[in-house]
Amino acid sequence: LNSAPGLPDTYARPQPLRSYAVSHPDLQDHMIEEVGAIISTWPCNSQNRDHCVATLARVEHTYFLWPMCIGEVAHISTEITYTSEHSVEVQVNVMSENILTGTKKLTNKATLWYVPLSLKNVDKVLEVPPVVYSRQEQEEAGQKRYKTQKLERMETKWRNEDVVQPVLNPEPNTVSYSQSSLIHMVGPSDCTLHSFVHEGVTMKLTDEVAGIVAARHCKTNLVTASVNAINFHDKIRKGCIKTISGRMAFTSNKSVEIEVLVDANSVADSSQKRYRAAMSLSQEGGSLPMPQRLPETQNEKKRFEEGKGRYLQMKAKWQGHMKLPLWPKTQFTLRAGVV
Amino acid sequence: LNSAPGLPDTYARPQPLRSYAVSHPDLQDHMIEEVGAIISTWPCNSQNRDHCVATLARVEHTYFLWPMCIGEVAHISTEITYTSEHSVEVQVNVMSENILTGTKKLTNKATLWYVPLSLKNVDKVLEVPPVVYSRQEQEEAGQKRYKTQKLERMETKWRNEDVVQPVLNPEPNTVSYSQSSLIHMVGPSDCTLHSFVHEGVTMKLTDEVAGIVAARHCKTNLVTASVNAINFHDKIRKGCIKTISGRMAFTSNKSVEIEVLVDANSVADSSQKRYRAAMSLSQEGGSLPMPQRLPETQNEKKRFEEGKGRYLQMKAKWQGHMKLPLWPKTQFTLRAGVV
Amino acid sequence: LNSAPGLPDTYARPQPLRSYAVSHPDLQDHMIEEVGAIISTWPCNSQNRDHCVATLARVEHTYFLWPMCIGEVAHISTEITYTSEHSVEVQVNVMSENILTGTKKLTNKATLWYVPLSLKNVDKVLEVPPVVYSRQEQEEAGQKRYKTQKLERMETKWRNEDVVQPVLNPEPNTVSYSQSSLIHMVGPSDCTLHSFVHEGVTMKLTDEVAGIVAARHCKTNLVTASVNAINFHDKIRKGCIKTISGRMAFTSNKSVEIEVLVDANSVADSSQKRYRAAMSLSQEGGSLPMPQRLPETQNEKKRFEEGKGRYLQMKAKWQGHMKLPLWPKTQFTLRAGVV
Repeated sequence: LNSAPGLPDTYARPQPLRSYAVSHPDLQDHMIEEVGAIISTWPCNSQNRDHCVATLARVEHTYFLWPMCIGEVAHISTEITYTSEHSVEVQVNVMSENILTGTKKLTNKATLWYVPLSLKNVDKVLEVPPVVYSRQEQEEAGQKRYKTQKLERMETKWRNEDVVQPVLNPEPNTVSYSQSSLIHMVGPSDCTLHSFVHEGVTMKLTDEVAGIVAARHCKTNLVTASVNAINFHDKIRKGCIKTISGRMAFTSNKSVEIEVLVDANSVADSSQKRYRAAMSLSQEGGSLPMPQRLPETQNEKKRFEEGKGRYLQMKAKWQGHMKLPLWPKTQFTLRAGVV
Repeated sequence: LNSAPGLPDTYARPQPLRSYAVSHPDLQDHMIEEVGAIISTWPCNSQNRDHCVATLARVEHTYFLWPMCIGEVAHISTEITYTSEHSVEVQVNVMSENILTGTKKLTNKATLWYVPLSLKNVDKVLEVPPVVYSRQEQEEAGQKRYKTQKLERMETKWRNEDVVQPVLNPEPNTVSYSQSSLIHMVGPSDCTLHSFVHEGVTMKLTDEVAGIVAARHCKTNLVTASVNAINFHDKIRKGCIKTISGRMAFTSNKSVEIEVLVDANSVADSSQKRYRAAMSLSQEGGSLPMPQRLPETQNEKKRFEEGKGRYLQMKAKWQGHMKLPLWPKTQFTLRAGVV
Repeated sequence: LNSAPGLPDTYARPQPLRSYAVSHPDLQDHMIEEVGAIISTWPCNSQNRDHCVATLARVEHTYFLWPMCIGEVAHISTEITYTSEHSVEVQVNVMSENILTGTKKLTNKATLWYVPLSLKNVDKVLEVPPVVYSRQEQEEAGQKRYKTQKLERMETKWRNEDVVQPVLNPEPNTVSYSQSSLIHMVGPSDCTLHSFVHEGVTMKLTDEVAGIVAARHCKTNLVTASVNAINFHDKIRKGCIKTISGRMAFTSNKSVEIEVLVDANSVADSSQKRYRAAMSLSQEGGSLPMPQRLPETQNEKKRFEEGKGRYLQMKAKWQGHMKLPLWPKTQFTLRAGVV
């Protein structure tokens, strides 16, 4: 990443690889989101115009390669890898460091998309100053990623009408049996400078609900192996009620896929219209064979087939690139303990 | 609970039994309060008028039937059981679920009274749209509960002048020896949308102070067996200093009763007048014989007799309805660990 | 401390020794700061004029005499020991109480300086009503302490240009090897009533960074033995990015001194000027011999010599007054666990 002409120094300086040490392993999601927001906000405020804060729009497929243990230090390095007219792509790497032995491990790699929103008028998306790439191919690869994610975002938007409905006395191993939801009234301390819910907070709750759904289905402890994209479709305002619902989408022999939907509606609004604020798909894995889920309804069967497609695609990727991390059961307690 | 004519669908839909799954056992008080506020706020905003948020006015006698363990999921179901002109009675049940075994237990039953306050003018109490009861007796029983609580609230208001005074070098087993207090300056993150202290936060601190008083008196770990009504008399504004003081009221052979007073005064007010914001009575129980408390002053003797009355009344109730839960000593660590 | 003529009762009443019980051992820094702010704010609002909140300007050398354990109750007593025209000196003592055995220990003694800032105009420092001292010498000693701290504050201000620069592949035992930093975007929930970062929060992060630097250098667990003054030079506004950086300043045989710098810059400001908000020096101690740090650059050598001076001065003090607490290694886990 080189300096762009006309951009201030800060944008050109070795921003690409900032390394920050933090010691809260439980705040990993929150930290990734925050560091991403900081690096995307800086260049967008470099020109003399409306001030803005970058807001998370999408998290790409994220692999959790290694758990972070209490007492370890997390190193987060970020790099702006692409900018479109109105969005910034940020690559975040999380390393865990055992500060006593000095051992470092890559625990987490995430790609995030941010959109700069004006601080004066939160519905106004500002322009992003372009970066200059060291090689032409970098720009082309970035443009390709930009178009792919745009298509995927639109696809999940179409499925916004889906609602997780409670079912009385569901049978074990059905989708209804393990589905779970959580509500929360958004208070001042959940919010960013814009008075919207902090996306890092939503990510953490999303992971929590996915973990509950998985444990209910499998009757055993699991770990989040990867998150297959989170799309933030709409902002959640202070004073709204947030509903986070999760349900099984697909089961393979040793992993399950869970779909989590985040909805919001205003308490102080007679229409009480509910809107879909975010959607996430995550894979939870364990070391024991999983009970097979039985899709019943038409929609459940459709989601199962889609999940199978994603699973086979990912499996092919793993076999090419890297090995799926097989964490022992006991490490799950980390997540449970830190939520 | 049936649909009331002229009310929107949401009020009529199966609202009465919403079930939410959450995994923060430590936030039980906070969750109960929040879910109660959500279900009471919805119908009050159903008509085209001032928007409001329901604010907690009173928690009725609450039994903690079973402790919630780390890793368990709390299910909260709520139902509006009565509405007066300006208040809503909500019944909240908390079930704990061990998601690995599927075992569920009723851990907590609470009845809460909410009052809808206008978002524009926080001193204005709005009207509550009436509910339609399926049977005439339901309305009559609700009206009776409404009148009883109103009387009790007024009674605790009369005792508002009582102050917990520190005593130098108190003797062991006296009221002065174990009394404890805690202060806190109310910041933005403690507050609700109205810029008042969140009642759930106050409830948690109240329980904490009661636990300290009990442990100091008994020199052993105890668990909160029940909370004998919390009355919220006045709102605590952002910027106030909150003082939470607890003292022994009564001791039986195996339980102690603690009175907790919540006072507030503004830092930025030359009058520095202190006002009583809330008052709570809670029973803490253990498995060992308790040291007997010796009431010394006139007021202490009066409170002891009142506590004895409540104790005998409750004992009769328990013998009729249910058994007092006898928790082993070791479980207390849960509360200590999660505060 | 006697009543000053013309001051309201609250200022004259037994304010000097307030004792508050709290059960969050992890919030010790935060509590000390909060209780100090409350006791300094009260008298400053006693006259009929602009309302204010007292803001922390400096923490004097603080000894951590004994660690506080989970389950213990912290007692905080505060006393106003000196007032200048625009500042208040507060002495805070923290006692830990094991509520089961009744054993009390002095864990922490701190002296803090507060400045009253108007709630209407945060850049306006208000006047402090004078206190009346029982003996002339008290006032003279206070005046001396006031002048000393003023000089020291100015001295650290001059060193504001120092920046902690990351170095690629540093050698072990160098300053660069163990230096660590942490960034954070200041949100609404980090702030006080003035919409500035809560100093208690900054103190906690400062201690955290110092602990990471020390553990990286020594490859062993350490405890904070004392904090050699924290100066708050400038307020950090909501929406700023806070950078907290720590580096080794000095090593003796059994302790290390770490310098922590707190910088801030606004995201929504094209100038992106960074300013030094606070600076702290802390001593971490252990029971094993420390690896010796090798100062390399001119500046590092200068800071090493300064650290040596402070170390020798302190050592002389310890030998005169009290013994340096030698905590076993295992107690460090407390700090790690509670952050």
